[in-house]
Amino acid sequence: MINTALKKTASMLVAATDGETSMIRVKNVCFGGKQIPVIAGPCAIENEDNLRETAFKVRAAGAVMLRGGAYKPRTSPYSFQGHGRSGLQCLARVGEEMNMPVITELMDGEDLDAVMEYSDIIQIGARNMYNYSLLRKLGKINKPVVLKRGLSATIEEWLLAAEYILAGGNKQVILCERGIRSAETWTRNTLDLNAVALVKQLSHLPVIVDPSHGTGVRSLVGPMSMAAVAAGADGLMIEVHPRPETALSDGEQSLTPRGFSQLMRQLEALVAVMGRRVR
Amino acid sequence: MINTALKKTASMLVAATDGETSMIRVKNVCFGGKQIPVIAGPCAIENEDNLRETAFKVRAAGAVMLRGGAYKPRTSPYSFQGHGRSGLQCLARVGEEMNMPVITELMDGEDLDAVMEYSDIIQIGARNMYNYSLLRKLGKINKPVVLKRGLSATIEEWLLAAEYILAGGNKQVILCERGIRSAETWTRNTLDLNAVALVKQLSHLPVIVDPSHGTGVRSLVGPMSMAAVAAGADGLMIEVHPRPETALSDGEQSLTPRGFSQLMRQLEALVAVMGRRVR
Amino acid sequence: MINTALKKTASMLVAATDGETSMIRVKNVCFGGKQIPVIAGPCAIENEDNLRETAFKVRAAGAVMLRGGAYKPRTSPYSFQGHGRSGLQCLARVGEEMNMPVITELMDGEDLDAVMEYSDIIQIGARNMYNYSLLRKLGKINKPVVLKRGLSATIEEWLLAAEYILAGGNKQVILCERGIRSAETWTRNTLDLNAVALVKQLSHLPVIVDPSHGTGVRSLVGPMSMAAVAAGADGLMIEVHPRPETALSDGEQSLTPRGFSQLMRQLEALVAVMGRRVR
Amino acid sequence: MINTALKKTASMLVAATDGETSMIRVKNVCFGGKQIPVIAGPCAIENEDNLRETAFKVRAAGAVMLRGGAYKPRTSPYSFQGHGRSGLQCLARVGEEMNMPVITELMDGEDLDAVMEYSDIIQIGARNMYNYSLLRKLGKINKPVVLKRGLSATIEEWLLAAEYILAGGNKQVILCERGIRSAETWTRNTLDLNAVALVKQLSHLPVIVDPSHGTGVRSLVGPMSMAAVAAGADGLMIEVHPRPETALSDGEQSLTPRGFSQLMRQLEALVAVMGRRVR
Repeated sequence: MINTALKKTASMLVAATDGETSMIRVKNVCFGGKQIPVIAGPCAIENEDNLRETAFKVRAAGAVMLRGGAYKPRTSPYSFQGHGRSGLQCLARVGEEMNMPVITELMDGEDLDAVMEYSDIIQIGARNMYNYSLLRKLGKINKPVVLKRGLSATIEEWLLAAEYILAGGNKQVILCERGIRSAETWTRNTLDLNAVALVKQLSHLPVIVDPSHGTGVRSLVGPMSMAAVAAGADGLMIEVHPRPETALSDGEQSLTPRGFSQLMRQLEALVAVMGRRVR
Repeated sequence: MINTALKKTASMLVAATDGETSMIRVKNVCFGGKQIPVIAGPCAIENEDNLRETAFKVRAAGAVMLRGGAYKPRTSPYSFQGHGRSGLQCLARVGEEMNMPVITELMDGEDLDAVMEYSDIIQIGARNMYNYSLLRKLGKINKPVVLKRGLSATIEEWLLAAEYILAGGNKQVILCERGIRSAETWTRNTLDLNAVALVKQLSHLPVIVDPSHGTGVRSLVGPMSMAAVAAGADGLMIEVHPRPETALSDGEQSLTPRGFSQLMRQLEALVAVMGRRVR
Repeated sequence: MINTALKKTASMLVAATDGETSMIRVKNVCFGGKQIPVIAGPCAIENEDNLRETAFKVRAAGAVMLRGGAYKPRTSPYSFQGHGRSGLQCLARVGEEMNMPVITELMDGEDLDAVMEYSDIIQIGARNMYNYSLLRKLGKINKPVVLKRGLSATIEEWLLAAEYILAGGNKQVILCERGIRSAETWTRNTLDLNAVALVKQLSHLPVIVDPSHGTGVRSLVGPMSMAAVAAGADGLMIEVHPRPETALSDGEQSLTPRGFSQLMRQLEALVAVMGRRVR
Repeated sequence: MINTALKKTASMLVAATDGETSMIRVKNVCFGGKQIPVIAGPCAIENEDNLRETAFKVRAAGAVMLRGGAYKPRTSPYSFQGHGRSGLQCLARVGEEMNMPVITELMDGEDLDAVMEYSDIIQIGARNMYNYSLLRKLGKINKPVVLKRGLSATIEEWLLAAEYILAGGNKQVILCERGIRSAETWTRNTLDLNAVALVKQLSHLPVIVDPSHGTGVRSLVGPMSMAAVAAGADGLMIEVHPRPETALSDGEQSLTPRGFSQLMRQLEALVAVMGRRVR
């Protein structure tokens, strides 16, 4: 199987060449080197006070980048869909105050300019991994893109989705494993760390892991963050909310700031063994 | 499970009310009534002669609508991506000559005006079922939409994707089952006819079936077309190519015109038993 | 994919040779010919009166074989596990009274003699498809075996499981598709009729379908029975219970005798179109 | 979801009570305490020299238990099926020489006495997780059982399979995650470490991980062993073969003794951070 995988990727721009991972820099943060950056923040940007409180606490605990959704891909048209541009502005303000680069999701090519204006990295969610029109547009920009794996995408499809961006000229792609569909119902998704380890061997792109969506269960976020780093992940993206029980989305899988802080201490010990660091 | 399903859909616009299926008319074709329209044509529009030859033959065999892709969502950025606007024009010309309404896939909101101009129905492919920005745009138009089920979408997610369109004001949605992912490798997808039967009970929307993508294997298209109709499908969409071995995409699953013609004769006998007709 | 499938099966005993399906006879019933036998009865044998009432009614409606479980593979050790040998005796008595051959599940090689004594066909359930020790024992007997597909077995694994029996010398194997696992939660399993159509092309073994387990939803049993026959199935196995709401197992997916009778009338019309018959 | 999981397991014998993991001792090895035992050896016992060479080398590298299959559940009846009783005797001899407890798979209740005689732990493979007759027999013995998760078993089904053994009176059950089926084809299975972390919270049973079957790819065994330990696994079972390219089964996923030795050094550093040890 590894032979098939190697053969299929060998001629692609995403293919590993010299066994080195490409380094992708965003202000003072670097993916793909010794650092294992931890991105944290709420699923959705709800209001500026909440976001500031969260940012302050996750930064203190060791997070180096702030996440928050302004455009939310929701299964139901009647669920909270995000605050859009005003959410973006809020995210940018708080990021600047805290001196943290920020990341947010883009769902629609029409919002590209707005997201480019306010966000340091552009996130493509699992539901848009196959949105090739959008990926082609991202090939033409000069900003890093975090490309999440589709809900049931094969590793090959995921790498080829990245290839759409690289083939357009944008080499700054970070892959993000966030769990795939299976018949299991006690977890929201099945986090596939095999994929992380395999992509690290096939490709020069950095790979990060989202254990929040990858499990859907707060108490599993810690163990799976540890596992992701041990499997070789180049970063983590973790949902944190000051009061998860009131969150407008994904409260079940959000850590509290205190829980996040405890996890960061465990991670620091672990990454040291791997010869890496979180800050 | 049916109780869960009924409860979850009950308050939605897609929910069945009086047990009747809504009728959606496109010129002389009607989905959701006694007719079981068969849509046929090549996966991609390759050139006008091929398309005309195919259209002529499938119409003679009983197809009432012509399909053909101008914008192709391909896994690899290096595969043939479709002829775009010139493909649309070619499709419209041939459809008019043959007096057949036409259907083609829309991948990007930016192409909506072009597709609206040339196509009688707008198809949303499996890869864009979760593209909520695109679905919202389709809620604002006055043309029928065929919404394919996502690659591993649950039935609930599929109905909620349709709800995005209906909630926007466009009630003309036709669902299309096209197979889901499983661990099976001898078929391209696993055609889920359970879903067809269940959606017919939960929703008033017509449901059609694409046995070409649903199997990925030419010799299975016939039996699964029969099965789909027996399960209650309101239509079929079948890939036909005059010389499948030379097709630019999906040749393995395309019927020849002769194979299509044989299938149509079997289908005519079957639909008669169901008290329905194909023309 | 069909080429892979053909190549992999070509050298096996299960492989189709002249395109004909083998006929397997059990008293007055024949699988694999013009007849499409319908097997009906309760999931579990609960008591003799219930079984007799069910048998009487399903026979009147057109069922030609009686099913009933005496050894039940239950997910929980605390669920009803079946009446064992006394259940077998009850099944044999009622079958004889009604002049219907009977089928029941074998879970353990130690019960083989008992099941051989009382049952006309031996059923291997999905959970034991990979129980190669048991399959090898069945290769040494002279009775037909119905081999259900495993919960997530590939078609190749299913055919190779049958091969275990054939290689032992017993050629009387009937395959039974009963649904596979997927991420869908509104149905108990995803009935894979692709597999039925494909196995009919690859193998000479008759293939029947269990739409009760294949859907887990009573209202889907009818449509999927129709679809199975249209896809080419050589028989059906349907759960029927006089009072499903009181059933000790699988009540949700059991038809009432009245529902079964209605379905049989629809099936009779359908199989006539296919040039086949149910009795 | 965690609430559903907790509620469903709460009344079971496998349920966690005081948050402690039960300790299961086999000679000088203990599962469920500070030690994280590593079991190593070939997939199948091929001949005594090979086994001795492997045992000698894995013991030197830090493995504390020897594995080897005498009864092999093979997909094809024509593949090597294991050496049976003579394989068991060989395993027992080498284990004794090396002073390592041994583990081997049981496929059939008829071989229980033989396996009891020669093996210190009895392994139930993924294909027999649903073999409730066999599980019931294991409830009556006084030896530890390693229960692998079924190929597509839910966590609930896996815990209930363990419950069959506990309910019979045998409390010495060790769970083993070995990957589940998904649509991914570049890995043999999808190792589900979510399940490991969740089962550690729901149950008092120790949980080990088999990264060899869980990936099917030699180069992934190392990273996923690390990940498993970081996720909280109580042990590892790793296939090692002196010359994997000549192995009678599973050569693709077997480490060489040298590769195993390198991995053990990495693991030692990691487990130290977790406050645990491998010997």
